[in-house]
Amino acid sequence: MAVYKAIVEYDGTRYRGWQNQKDTGNTIQGKLMAVLTRLAGQQVEVHGSGRTDAGVHARGQVISFSLEQGYEPEEILHYMNHYLPDDIGVISVERASGRFHARLNARAKTYVYRIWNSRLPNVFERRWMYILEEPLDVEAMQQAADQFLGTHDFAAFCSVKKKKKSTVRTIYEFSVERLGGEVRIRITGDGFLYHMVRILVGTLVEVGLKVRDSGGIPELLDQGLRADSGMTVPAKGLILWEVYYR
Amino acid sequence: MAVYKAIVEYDGTRYRGWQNQKDTGNTIQGKLMAVLTRLAGQQVEVHGSGRTDAGVHARGQVISFSLEQGYEPEEILHYMNHYLPDDIGVISVERASGRFHARLNARAKTYVYRIWNSRLPNVFERRWMYILEEPLDVEAMQQAADQFLGTHDFAAFCSVKKKKKSTVRTIYEFSVERLGGEVRIRITGDGFLYHMVRILVGTLVEVGLKVRDSGGIPELLDQGLRADSGMTVPAKGLILWEVYYR
Repeated sequence: MAVYKAIVEYDGTRYRGWQNQKDTGNTIQGKLMAVLTRLAGQQVEVHGSGRTDAGVHARGQVISFSLEQGYEPEEILHYMNHYLPDDIGVISVERASGRFHARLNARAKTYVYRIWNSRLPNVFERRWMYILEEPLDVEAMQQAADQFLGTHDFAAFCSVKKKKKSTVRTIYEFSVERLGGEVRIRITGDGFLYHMVRILVGTLVEVGLKVRDSGGIPELLDQGLRADSGMTVPAKGLILWEVYYR
Repeated sequence: MAVYKAIVEYDGTRYRGWQNQKDTGNTIQGKLMAVLTRLAGQQVEVHGSGRTDAGVHARGQVISFSLEQGYEPEEILHYMNHYLPDDIGVISVERASGRFHARLNARAKTYVYRIWNSRLPNVFERRWMYILEEPLDVEAMQQAADQFLGTHDFAAFCSVKKKKKSTVRTIYEFSVERLGGEVRIRITGDGFLYHMVRILVGTLVEVGLKVRDSGGIPELLDQGLRADSGMTVPAKGLILWEVYYR
């Protein structure tokens, strides 16, 4: 058995998210497994660095899988791109160590969240952005973002809490910038809870709209109550940008 | 009557081109006229800087129209964007001189043609690019492009010739650059014949694939035979980028 690591991009618009489900084949993981199973002539398991929700996109999702025979990485790459739908693409395939696992070995991830923050339309990129006409105060959002840097308990920024599981995570980078009509948010951390990025962004958006004061963030982190943090922004603006390994 | 000038962008994928047709409402011009007619409560004519074919896109199409009453440009902008489909957007509206006409007054235009020239996929932008896996020699294409600069008879680069109409045009800029997996071509001229940009790009592509030598271009221009010039590349890669006025 040989283990491979691949980088995958996808437009998540049409899919029910990453994770394969028994009752529907319409998931990213399902499509990838079907193609690799076809190549190998037997069932192939695909591990992703993490799940993405329905409608979330990826530029740099990382997957690992094992194949019985010694396929060339180049051969796997072109086979997959030939049989995958147009909205899922494989960017690279390489041989990995026999112990490599895309989820278990992931050290950090970067997500990008894109907001089209303008009264003018954007006909080309609207599919991948949250459309919000009211002007956002990007400086205030950056000040709020800065308060999440470092290691905190993010219990208030998680949709479904699992008892006994730690909600402590470390954020390395959290930036907010305006690029013309777009407000682009970038966050890097060692891991993210369910809906965590979208709730963090929703909290920043409320600060940017001046319906929330960033002074309340330390207390939000202390109290750990989901009801006190911001809205969950739509999936369509979220992109899994990069996954880091040792 | 007040005359207005507006800049319009559209994703042409869904449309049968620019020009309004009696048997189908599914044109860009038709959609714009319908919205302005609704605003004005009477038939409004819309003039574009020029037609774009079915499937061609625009970042900077310019239109002119007259309205009976003195609407504020801002009001027209937001009304149009509210009622237009998501793939047509109005970027700006301003009052123009009473003699302004988007087609008759246009001095020059820039088109951009995008080719995704990679064996790797591009899931996000494939809708707006011609997908061509075989590697293009961009330097050879630029050398070919240079030979079109200046004033020439472009009879060989026109799909449907109208007798008595001049086929002489002036090209101010014709550049080819590689941006990662993309080859981006930019052409500015005082005007373009029917399919001229797509045949010029097709000719460059044949040079880039080494099935045509750029040494033959002066003769192509001299002879003026459509059969000798290159293929017409697909509409989906073409974008009307900017229109210039005095």
